[in-house]
Amino acid sequence: MADKQDERKVTPRSQDFAGWYNDIILKAELADYSPVRGCIVFRPDGFAIWEALRDELDKRIKKTGARNAYFPLFIPQSFLRKEAQHVEGFAPEVAAVTHGGGEELEEPLIVRPTSETIINHMFSQWIHSYRDLPMMVNQWCNVVRWEMRTRIFLRTAEFLWQEGHTAHATREDAERETLTILDLYRSFVEGFLAIPLVVGRKSAAERFPGADETYTIEGLMGDGRALQCGTSHFLGQNFARAFETRYLDEQNQLQYVWQTSWGVSTRLLGAIIMVHGDDQGLRLPPTVAANQVVIVPISRKPEEGATVLAAARDLFDTLENAGIRVKLDTRDGVSPGFKFNDWEMRGVPLRIEIGPRDVASGEVVMARRDMKGPEAKSKAPIAEVGSRVPAMLAEIQKSLYQQALSVMQKETREFGDYAAFKKQMEGEGGGGLANIFWCGNPECETRIREETRATCRAIPLDQKGLSGKCMVCGESATERAYFAKAY
Amino acid sequence: MADKQDERKVTPRSQDFAGWYNDIILKAELADYSPVRGCIVFRPDGFAIWEALRDELDKRIKKTGARNAYFPLFIPQSFLRKEAQHVEGFAPEVAAVTHGGGEELEEPLIVRPTSETIINHMFSQWIHSYRDLPMMVNQWCNVVRWEMRTRIFLRTAEFLWQEGHTAHATREDAERETLTILDLYRSFVEGFLAIPLVVGRKSAAERFPGADETYTIEGLMGDGRALQCGTSHFLGQNFARAFETRYLDEQNQLQYVWQTSWGVSTRLLGAIIMVHGDDQGLRLPPTVAANQVVIVPISRKPEEGATVLAAARDLFDTLENAGIRVKLDTRDGVSPGFKFNDWEMRGVPLRIEIGPRDVASGEVVMARRDMKGPEAKSKAPIAEVGSRVPAMLAEIQKSLYQQALSVMQKETREFGDYAAFKKQMEGEGGGGLANIFWCGNPECETRIREETRATCRAIPLDQKGLSGKCMVCGESATERAYFAKAY
Repeated sequence: MADKQDERKVTPRSQDFAGWYNDIILKAELADYSPVRGCIVFRPDGFAIWEALRDELDKRIKKTGARNAYFPLFIPQSFLRKEAQHVEGFAPEVAAVTHGGGEELEEPLIVRPTSETIINHMFSQWIHSYRDLPMMVNQWCNVVRWEMRTRIFLRTAEFLWQEGHTAHATREDAERETLTILDLYRSFVEGFLAIPLVVGRKSAAERFPGADETYTIEGLMGDGRALQCGTSHFLGQNFARAFETRYLDEQNQLQYVWQTSWGVSTRLLGAIIMVHGDDQGLRLPPTVAANQVVIVPISRKPEEGATVLAAARDLFDTLENAGIRVKLDTRDGVSPGFKFNDWEMRGVPLRIEIGPRDVASGEVVMARRDMKGPEAKSKAPIAEVGSRVPAMLAEIQKSLYQQALSVMQKETREFGDYAAFKKQMEGEGGGGLANIFWCGNPECETRIREETRATCRAIPLDQKGLSGKCMVCGESATERAYFAKAY
Repeated sequence: MADKQDERKVTPRSQDFAGWYNDIILKAELADYSPVRGCIVFRPDGFAIWEALRDELDKRIKKTGARNAYFPLFIPQSFLRKEAQHVEGFAPEVAAVTHGGGEELEEPLIVRPTSETIINHMFSQWIHSYRDLPMMVNQWCNVVRWEMRTRIFLRTAEFLWQEGHTAHATREDAERETLTILDLYRSFVEGFLAIPLVVGRKSAAERFPGADETYTIEGLMGDGRALQCGTSHFLGQNFARAFETRYLDEQNQLQYVWQTSWGVSTRLLGAIIMVHGDDQGLRLPPTVAANQVVIVPISRKPEEGATVLAAARDLFDTLENAGIRVKLDTRDGVSPGFKFNDWEMRGVPLRIEIGPRDVASGEVVMARRDMKGPEAKSKAPIAEVGSRVPAMLAEIQKSLYQQALSVMQKETREFGDYAAFKKQMEGEGGGGLANIFWCGNPECETRIREETRATCRAIPLDQKGLSGKCMVCGESATERAYFAKAY
């Protein structure tokens, strides 16, 4: 038993963030490495988080009027080349199919890194008149971008995502759509994943290849690094011109459509882990936890076992009937203490302990994963557990968000002085979010990146009437921007 | 208007089945051809059918204890070669990635045609003891099998499917699982897709490459051809031996696991179309229809328009609140007659017509897509529509199944005489299901295939005590089998 407990022990987060991250992913059985370089396996406990996230986001996306579709995995190489910036951005990292059915192909097929090109080809066949607009599709699929340095969920050759693609009659419609989705992502990630964000547009250097403007939501991970959690692109008419995606307007004139694309991926699983986890392991928001509640029956004497188990089963039924995702841990041969640690490591939001004395007194102990020490535990009458649990799960969700928000606020600093900024960004770890005046000159951005490895994460929207001096060059600046070291 | 109607007209099914099939897929906007050879695009109206089907099947699969996971798209070429029959079956039809990130790979990666090999590799890492068994995973994903002759939904280079993979301690457990899933598929396809089936095991020639036994559900399409709608394989220990997938049993002995795999794919969309469709177009079972009900407001004079539209909107709200997937067709510039034909072609199960006289009398006309002529139409008080529609949709579901069952029964024939059988299978079309005594000799099977193009579709289970003479060779036979020309 002792060695089994040790084997389960995770590297403390406070000691080695990267080691801790890998450890809990493997030990909580969220994912595993695969024999294919750069590719990972999503195990059931990890995939369940993705499913919960996907189902909720899918509903919200459909409410905006977009509908799901599915486009080919393969893209003719020539398609990728049609948009100059796009090919420049993606060509170096594609996987190419050169043989099919035992024969060499005339033209290699690219395994999609993203689908703007093939979707524009289809849009150009489907869109004829202004009556066909807006055309709004979303696709849940796998994409491949050849990556050599794998970090599970964050950077893998194959990953899963949704990619929305819309075509509109006017620039205004497309711009509005870009921001509608940006706000949908923000509200989804903050509310459903309990991850606080900064929101804004990207600098030109960080834009999606082929976009006129990229908007982003950025989270701050537990080690002080930023993570891009989702992007929404205003594509202008770049792909429309490359693929002749045109429509007849009400005056019977041919016009190019205005477009957007937007996506979030399985890297959100990495964000959940890195924002909420602690030294003991995962802490999952109840919204995405495969098991929201675990019931651990405790009995030391065999004659108590049956009574306790019967009460635990009743409780299980009550909670399951109330729509709670609940697990009853009836494992033999492991101690209650082992079970507590195991479920804490796996991030189950709420544990219910029930022993013979609890059965006798008609009470149980509830232990919240979002809190530590004695205050994490409370007693509840068995008859009230069914009604109390949903409220407590909602509280846990809120509390995880608040804790993450406090960390983010503490780790967000304004800098006027470049030397102080550089000092803050020194070392191997992150350095939090730096909020600085930036003149917008790419040279200042490059200098920051080269000297500190921090990049421009987001330039907040609606910064009217600001005026200051660029932290790097001292020239006048009218906008503040968030810079940080990022994944 | 007139030309628009003609443009929408589909080739009658009775006249040219294959032409009709392609026509309605394209005109009902279920799917489209793509610029990538062998690959298709699932358009929103087609993908919605897949989503409805997938969500329901996913629930049923999860109830058996299997959980979803996700394995890499790419499989090392050497993996495919580890199981002799498997590589023989799949090697000729794979797509190979030879370049990644601009460089040639040391070993080509195969785009998965199915995932037994990579999943066994992972199982061999995850399975240690009998306590880890059964291990049951399911994966929804895309797979690629290089096909040159594309038929939308039925035969495409890339398609979508679910593939379940389970490992068990004993042969009996694995055999039971194989049949449990077979029955799950049967009940799902018959109940949810309203498609009657014959069920049985495959002949050795038709087995999955690497399986000891393959079980199948087979439907009969509207042209008299059979379509394999799903398969469940008992894999024995073939992959376990190839990948060293072993566990320590309770006596601490290393044992190979016993395995199953099973899948259904997007070809089920083809089955839905070919079983239920008629000369006018699609007929969708209410369970999978993106729109279960369409409301068509009718008004000839402008002054009536507002009243009718208001009543139609009320009805829409009532039905939507009752959980019905309902569409209100407010298109201007097309006649009610055009709308009727359009929605009939698109297969909407129930149409509600509402005009000024209906509003005045407090009634609407309901027109069922599963019936023809005057009996398809009935009147209902507006106040009762909300409560009547769910029952009517359930009736339509049942009626579509019954109609398909009648066709299947009519098109199933017993043959004792090979000459009569051959005559029945002559010509370009199908020939229905032939129920024959077969001695089990592969030579007789080959002769049938070569002389009639019919293949063994299914050998029904539980045929105890039968005895007859093989239709081909006249030798004694103890089993009947279904033979048919198939897609």
